[in-house]
Amino acid sequence: MASTTAARSWPSRPRNHTRQGAVHDTAGREAVSGPLVIAVDAMGGDQAPDVVIKGLALARDRHPEVHYRLYGDEGRVGPLLRAHRALEDVCTLHHTTEVVSSEDKPSQAVRGGRKSSLWLSINSVKQGEAAGVVSAGNTGAFMAMSKLIMRTLPGIDRPAIATVLPTLKGDCVMLDLGANAECDTKNLVDFAIMGEVFARTVLALDRPTVGLMNIGSEAGKGTDTEREAAARLSDSALPIDFYGFVEGDDLAKGTVDVIVTDGFTGNVMLKAVEGTAKLYAQFLRNAYSSSTLAKLGYMLSRPALEKVKARTDPRRYNGAMLLGLTGVAVKSHGGTDALGFANAVCVAIDLVRQGFNETIKGEFGKVHGPAPAPVAS
Amino acid sequence: MASTTAARSWPSRPRNHTRQGAVHDTAGREAVSGPLVIAVDAMGGDQAPDVVIKGLALARDRHPEVHYRLYGDEGRVGPLLRAHRALEDVCTLHHTTEVVSSEDKPSQAVRGGRKSSLWLSINSVKQGEAAGVVSAGNTGAFMAMSKLIMRTLPGIDRPAIATVLPTLKGDCVMLDLGANAECDTKNLVDFAIMGEVFARTVLALDRPTVGLMNIGSEAGKGTDTEREAAARLSDSALPIDFYGFVEGDDLAKGTVDVIVTDGFTGNVMLKAVEGTAKLYAQFLRNAYSSSTLAKLGYMLSRPALEKVKARTDPRRYNGAMLLGLTGVAVKSHGGTDALGFANAVCVAIDLVRQGFNETIKGEFGKVHGPAPAPVAS
Repeated sequence: MASTTAARSWPSRPRNHTRQGAVHDTAGREAVSGPLVIAVDAMGGDQAPDVVIKGLALARDRHPEVHYRLYGDEGRVGPLLRAHRALEDVCTLHHTTEVVSSEDKPSQAVRGGRKSSLWLSINSVKQGEAAGVVSAGNTGAFMAMSKLIMRTLPGIDRPAIATVLPTLKGDCVMLDLGANAECDTKNLVDFAIMGEVFARTVLALDRPTVGLMNIGSEAGKGTDTEREAAARLSDSALPIDFYGFVEGDDLAKGTVDVIVTDGFTGNVMLKAVEGTAKLYAQFLRNAYSSSTLAKLGYMLSRPALEKVKARTDPRRYNGAMLLGLTGVAVKSHGGTDALGFANAVCVAIDLVRQGFNETIKGEFGKVHGPAPAPVAS
Repeated sequence: MASTTAARSWPSRPRNHTRQGAVHDTAGREAVSGPLVIAVDAMGGDQAPDVVIKGLALARDRHPEVHYRLYGDEGRVGPLLRAHRALEDVCTLHHTTEVVSSEDKPSQAVRGGRKSSLWLSINSVKQGEAAGVVSAGNTGAFMAMSKLIMRTLPGIDRPAIATVLPTLKGDCVMLDLGANAECDTKNLVDFAIMGEVFARTVLALDRPTVGLMNIGSEAGKGTDTEREAAARLSDSALPIDFYGFVEGDDLAKGTVDVIVTDGFTGNVMLKAVEGTAKLYAQFLRNAYSSSTLAKLGYMLSRPALEKVKARTDPRRYNGAMLLGLTGVAVKSHGGTDALGFANAVCVAIDLVRQGFNETIKGEFGKVHGPAPAPVAS
């Protein structure tokens, strides 16, 4: 795992054939050699642009060869950048004063925010100027703009929000976490393929197992959509090691490497898990500060407890990926700090480096035959 | 909160007008005074009948006036009962050797288990011989049999599984936790009313707030069903303090007293939360045993940590209630111990004592007008 000062980056087991130094355009072709470029919405998030710049500085420690296209107010970003000379050397700053606020509805943002830092940063991926985009801004606007600008990869109807979560056995990637409130059978099957590819290419797992969230493991439980999706995923023609149904507690147990669910269930589940983690942390803090003896006990156990904190630190899992679009798009929590933002940037870098989109196109080509005309998302 | 040896019982604030000593028949009329009787499936659960009998002995400490009708194999239950004389005095044992196994499908159990301890204990409520039933056995069979035997109260289409969970601010009751994989708008509204009545009558909260689970708090998010349910719940003619939409992390925050969701989402969420709690407990155990210093620190902090453990101990929240039927039905976790089973029994006792079903009938009468013909569930 990463040190406490640098951002965590996947994969945990480094791969030999990372395509370092290549820029991937939206069609996935490896361009003439040049640095990997990530577009960044410098104005998105509760403490932008400060946290953004500090986060990029941390990311640069880990990936010194990556370049960034920053979009935002020169008057505010410029001075911060100039205070980080090493980072300034790998950044280009593209000025705009227009921003999408956290209260803006997605439709408002899409209609009126064509000059916003959010729109411009996403659009630069479409234009082939960057391989991926990272923002900590308005989630709904980020998703709406990304889907509109970047479109889905061939064979995919809907993109899904995915993130990696800690489990008893390591990590698990879960999707969809909120991009689609309702999903049909094909959506779930697509998510399973995307999740499996992610686990294989980015987490470097040899044969990741895929589970489908359901209530009760008997085949008859849950809805028709789950049953049909399970039937399709069990088809041995699919390049997936399908475990079968899993239940809510299988996430923490680490029963499978990939968990697939509809966006409503996934979003509620993710937030409930995060809320429970915070609740327990609060209960523990209360306990430790409740008496002198307890405080003393805490000080003695502290080194051991810090490891737990590192293992479960949400900042090390910050960076939800919007999988299935023609470009890499990663959304950071709005309230994260520099370490968390740096993690989100590293997630984007890894997705590009490990050729996630290229592999997805290959897999969907195999599963669905020759790529059909791109579906408007 | 309860001591560590006795089971926890609601309400946390005792009410003056508990109808102690009354038996409530299935029509809700208070019978001629006599002890409150609870039917118990003595053979349900991983360690039945041992855990059942020990659990009842603990429950008796808390509620010495309650009587029990036990259903199970006299050859196995009898000796255990005779080892608990005080308990034996308040029990009648009804012999049957037939049991529903944990592998039986609900439909199989319903068809072939008419002489099982599970069926007979539920049926005794229907017959007016007991006011409520408790089982730690096969959940699917318990639900199927309860719905078939007891039917829903007037105005209610579907019963819901509800349980109380710990939050930062106290407790929260959540439903549906798995009785209905798919719900329509009326189901969600019904659940809201039932949850509010529970919080008011059993948890003794003056004006409980009710939240509807959704993804994102913007009105436009989620599905039509959520939006329509929210619209109906906002109607001031309904006797509900409707907070609005809540998200997954609002459970732990204790934002509202009652959370309503469909059974699929609720089940996944509940299990995910339980899984996360176990994960954290495991991480902490690993940390505390990782070094001598950490062990020493644990010993010093232990009294404070034991309070956290008590606050979050799943045994103190054991006992999922099937709300909306003509009788009280409570399902204990199959793997619980005596303390957990005792808690489930106390939940049933409280539901009967606080007149939950009677209040529900009154509320639904107000909301839907004169009670329609009972709907077959």
